[in-house]
Amino acid sequence: MPLTFTPLPKIPLIHPGDDLAEILLASLQTARITPEDGDILVVAQKIVSKAEDRLVNLTTVTPSKEALELAKTSEKDPRLVELILHESRQVLRVRPGTIIVEHRLGFVCASAGIDHSNVMGEEGDPEDWVLLLPENPDHSALEIRRRIKLATGNRLGVMIIDSHGRAWRVGTVGTAIGISGLPGLVDKRGWKDLFGYRLKITIVAAADELAAAASLVMGEAAEGTPAVHVRGFPYPLREGSLSELIRPKSQDLFR
Amino acid sequence: MPLTFTPLPKIPLIHPGDDLAEILLASLQTARITPEDGDILVVAQKIVSKAEDRLVNLTTVTPSKEALELAKTSEKDPRLVELILHESRQVLRVRPGTIIVEHRLGFVCASAGIDHSNVMGEEGDPEDWVLLLPENPDHSALEIRRRIKLATGNRLGVMIIDSHGRAWRVGTVGTAIGISGLPGLVDKRGWKDLFGYRLKITIVAAADELAAAASLVMGEAAEGTPAVHVRGFPYPLREGSLSELIRPKSQDLFR
Repeated sequence: MPLTFTPLPKIPLIHPGDDLAEILLASLQTARITPEDGDILVVAQKIVSKAEDRLVNLTTVTPSKEALELAKTSEKDPRLVELILHESRQVLRVRPGTIIVEHRLGFVCASAGIDHSNVMGEEGDPEDWVLLLPENPDHSALEIRRRIKLATGNRLGVMIIDSHGRAWRVGTVGTAIGISGLPGLVDKRGWKDLFGYRLKITIVAAADELAAAASLVMGEAAEGTPAVHVRGFPYPLREGSLSELIRPKSQDLFR
Repeated sequence: MPLTFTPLPKIPLIHPGDDLAEILLASLQTARITPEDGDILVVAQKIVSKAEDRLVNLTTVTPSKEALELAKTSEKDPRLVELILHESRQVLRVRPGTIIVEHRLGFVCASAGIDHSNVMGEEGDPEDWVLLLPENPDHSALEIRRRIKLATGNRLGVMIIDSHGRAWRVGTVGTAIGISGLPGLVDKRGWKDLFGYRLKITIVAAADELAAAASLVMGEAAEGTPAVHVRGFPYPLREGSLSELIRPKSQDLFR
């Protein structure tokens, strides 16, 4: 069976308090997609954060001494740096224009995933508004999944993704930051290859592989969409979580 | 338009000297897929390496002093370590069971991409045979692309992928190691978002995003396939190369 990523049409601009599950269901209907057990919905972090009102106005933020210092070396707005620090466990690298952190959710990313683009607050200068990642993206995914199960009876997986850079390669790739009802990893240890040998490279980051192509379909500009329907995921769905994908510090050779 | 990944059926076991382009064309026909301009074929490194006879029998390898030392700390076969060193520019990290290198092709990966699984040589103990990456995967991709253009008249992109680990996340993801006729990166600097702001995160590793999902479709075990047909890539095709995706050392914060 082919693996198919369909951009979901006519997702409106999302505002705090919006009901994402309802909006996704309406969009599926517009696209004439009847959900089936085993399908996966991939949702951009941005609209989840907006619906959950993770907007912060920078004029309300008072930078700490630590933030002021880090703002100098990173050449970033001290109020933004204050938020980055608040959302992070540890700062890993700083260069002009770049702050790489371990996010409080466990993954390593730039600027704690805090974003300016496409952010529109309720009032004031749009440049003052930034958007934090969802408080608990696994939970956000679970909520959408529950609501879709309730409305359609179908068992779908739901994933929330963001664009992350990589240590050694240029460009961002779509990456899972919240998972519900699908595997983060698929463990193939013990599987046999064509000759009956056991496979060597055998733990596949299936959710991240899915997130990458979903991100490609979303695009990031005006003509893009923040939600994608996936059919044909080649592994059985199960409970899953972001934590599967986070490399424990003890096994991290590159900090 | 949906983005669709179709596993190509009935790819036989590949042997040195096999004509991959012909095999792929036959498989497309079996799958009743008529190639169209803008389609992309994604091919697993393993079958390209085999067709190009990148098999090495470990009994023919004499480890150097450096390889013998590295074999001790990595707890790997000294003959395999000799090949890893030969295929690498620099060793970045060594732990029992793990050697992370900068491959001569520029990317960072484990064991220089040298693989045991699914390798069957012409004679002797199959455990003695290993498979190196293609000499020049961009060129291998170009050759397949040229042959398909010749046979069908269509302008396809061709990509060769392998499974790579990541610095901070568990599990492997499909990653581009050779590109012809499609962009490695899509540069969106200057694009506007929904409110007319310029986008911030704007260089997308489109080839890697495609490689990830293609890898998911390939699987890695007996029921898998080493080739995938992609339709609906949302950006125009152009000349491209692996080098776009390699972060220059001067910008690498994590060595």
